[in-house]
Amino acid sequence: MCGTTEQGHAIRQTEDVSPDARNNGASRNLSSDAVVNLDHGDPTMFETYWRNMGDKCTLVIPGYQSLSYFADTKNLCWFLEPKLEESIKNLHNVVGNAVVDDYYIVVGTGSSQLIEAVLYALSPPDQPKPTSVVCAAPYYSCYKEMAEYMRSGLYKWEGDAHTFDKAGTYIEMVTSPNNPDGICREAVVKKDGGKLVHDLAYYWPQYTPITAPADYDIMLFTVSKCTGHAGSRIGWALVKDKEVAQKMVGFMTISTIGVSKESQHRAAKILEVISNGCEDFKSPGGNFFHYGKSILTKRWDILRNTLKHSRVFSLAKYPIKYCHFTQDFSEAHPAFAWIKSKDKIDDCEKFFRGHNILTRSGRRFGSDPMYARVSMVSKEEDFELFIKRLSSINNLNIISAA
Amino acid sequence: MCGTTEQGHAIRQTEDVSPDARNNGASRNLSSDAVVNLDHGDPTMFETYWRNMGDKCTLVIPGYQSLSYFADTKNLCWFLEPKLEESIKNLHNVVGNAVVDDYYIVVGTGSSQLIEAVLYALSPPDQPKPTSVVCAAPYYSCYKEMAEYMRSGLYKWEGDAHTFDKAGTYIEMVTSPNNPDGICREAVVKKDGGKLVHDLAYYWPQYTPITAPADYDIMLFTVSKCTGHAGSRIGWALVKDKEVAQKMVGFMTISTIGVSKESQHRAAKILEVISNGCEDFKSPGGNFFHYGKSILTKRWDILRNTLKHSRVFSLAKYPIKYCHFTQDFSEAHPAFAWIKSKDKIDDCEKFFRGHNILTRSGRRFGSDPMYARVSMVSKEEDFELFIKRLSSINNLNIISAA
Repeated sequence: MCGTTEQGHAIRQTEDVSPDARNNGASRNLSSDAVVNLDHGDPTMFETYWRNMGDKCTLVIPGYQSLSYFADTKNLCWFLEPKLEESIKNLHNVVGNAVVDDYYIVVGTGSSQLIEAVLYALSPPDQPKPTSVVCAAPYYSCYKEMAEYMRSGLYKWEGDAHTFDKAGTYIEMVTSPNNPDGICREAVVKKDGGKLVHDLAYYWPQYTPITAPADYDIMLFTVSKCTGHAGSRIGWALVKDKEVAQKMVGFMTISTIGVSKESQHRAAKILEVISNGCEDFKSPGGNFFHYGKSILTKRWDILRNTLKHSRVFSLAKYPIKYCHFTQDFSEAHPAFAWIKSKDKIDDCEKFFRGHNILTRSGRRFGSDPMYARVSMVSKEEDFELFIKRLSSINNLNIISAA
Repeated sequence: MCGTTEQGHAIRQTEDVSPDARNNGASRNLSSDAVVNLDHGDPTMFETYWRNMGDKCTLVIPGYQSLSYFADTKNLCWFLEPKLEESIKNLHNVVGNAVVDDYYIVVGTGSSQLIEAVLYALSPPDQPKPTSVVCAAPYYSCYKEMAEYMRSGLYKWEGDAHTFDKAGTYIEMVTSPNNPDGICREAVVKKDGGKLVHDLAYYWPQYTPITAPADYDIMLFTVSKCTGHAGSRIGWALVKDKEVAQKMVGFMTISTIGVSKESQHRAAKILEVISNGCEDFKSPGGNFFHYGKSILTKRWDILRNTLKHSRVFSLAKYPIKYCHFTQDFSEAHPAFAWIKSKDKIDDCEKFFRGHNILTRSGRRFGSDPMYARVSMVSKEEDFELFIKRLSSINNLNIISAA
């Protein structure tokens, strides 16, 4: 998800996505030649789970509630609803994916706003040159766009962390598990003057084994990828340093004067329901992460099976690790498949587009166009149509190559 | 509302507001020496109205609703909920304060985000110099902060429009009625290469007579000031030009991937209830704008009466105009009082602070520190305490000056 800057200002988001192909959550009957949009990581896969939960997560807000800009006047993050803070802490404790004690929580309008806030907060205004921003390729395509679109004098996108060799202060984005390729990562630059931001949007049990509670200086999470409620635009940062947290809050104060109270109330409720479900291990059907993992495991099995003998496409394997949350060994089942085309296909995204499948080109991630990123968290009918087409492309090419 | 940049990064918002003084919407018993915070335009005055409306505006959202990033795939503004668009258009038609036909509607996380989006959209990326941004002083204090905090190379804050004489493209913010002083305004620069943005946040019948439907190229509105639901962070822009609207949507796509769906659903409902109430002229008690106007009229009468013979403070008068909505003649009753101190008090904000009243200094608005902006839309108990203290300051000074 996210637009891209072309010639400075044109936004691909509003240009290259066929309106009919956008999945707006309604149930649809897809015709065999329908455009399947797997470009964005729109997490509509989780809708069925929430539908099955009945009114457990229904939020009721009376008209007189939350008129004020303020949520908690005693909190450094004065627009953070206390119930949301509590739900976030509980969930991390239940899942065991992040340490929360002695961290400041800053809520944002999705993790996008938090990424911008953190770049702002970590870029000293008194430097002769803008702070460098880097990430190891393949990197989340939106980092580049977010770092460049305002032409800020505070920071500058410097691309792939592997080839970064400039002096001075820098910010390294460490995405783990990584978007687009699902690999668990560590920082790569390791120089003096570096500040690390750990984007842990996908560090949840449905996507990857939880090997230890993360305790980095700055950690970013988002409801979109955790629960599937992307429309709510709620993200949060766990921040160790008070001054950094204050500057991030300052950014949010100027840019949007806080974050939607309605979304915060709803996210608080949903996270609470998930935490409560997790504690009841006897009923795995009621456990959100078990549900998510089972669907993604099934989809990955189908995808791997489809591409098993493919001479056209390949997929990386993920190592088997022990997950402290699910208490078993398993490999990762990322939210995206990072598909590599072989030999004759030098532009994987273009090739898929020719078959009415919208994906995101490797080029956008600072990588090779032989790669394309494909969402694995779409609605079932989109996934099925994707597999059907992939299958026929695969068969066709095996025959033609035989 | 809004922070300010001091030494580049420190945010006054989180520094100079005593937490105890922040009004978070709960009912409080204010002691006689309590700090009264009238710095922000936190519109908690309207809470009583919404409380009296019972469950008419109660919003119910099931857990499975609005998971997707997308709201309406056929709309240029793909994250705008169709119900909100409909409610916005209906309300403008009922109130008669803006033309909506042939305009694109872009929703934002409050009007703050829309202001940034519009600066981005109107600043050509291929210019040798950043586009100038100006506004006639006294100007809304956040414009300067919003235009400066990212140190963008796209645009540059150039201050007071009255003294602006640079060549090249420029953007003039026209705030009408104006924040802080409540005066209805027109553009002042009037040069070639100028682009106008009309910030009409306060162009609603509770604040000012509605003299005609506005039909400017770009008009900004916000739920915060219209209905009092500041915590929802919902604003909207009416935009004539398709390309400008597209670029604004592009900005929102990169910065926050759209706007909270929960807040949009709630705003849609609240605006609809207001529109329906307006159509029933026989029951003015049920009409939101009549209610708002009656409270503000009373508060302004009390304030004017308190300062009637004051040798310490003065207030400007507003012209009497015919309001097509209320169908009567009246003067404006702005959301802020722009109080000027006389003679011995050269820093009005500092003087008030000494009496435990927090206001915003004229300096912040590009004006004289003899002025202070005081919120008139606070809760009743804050307003009463303010008047009580003002009264005693007033008496004291009349006696000492006698």
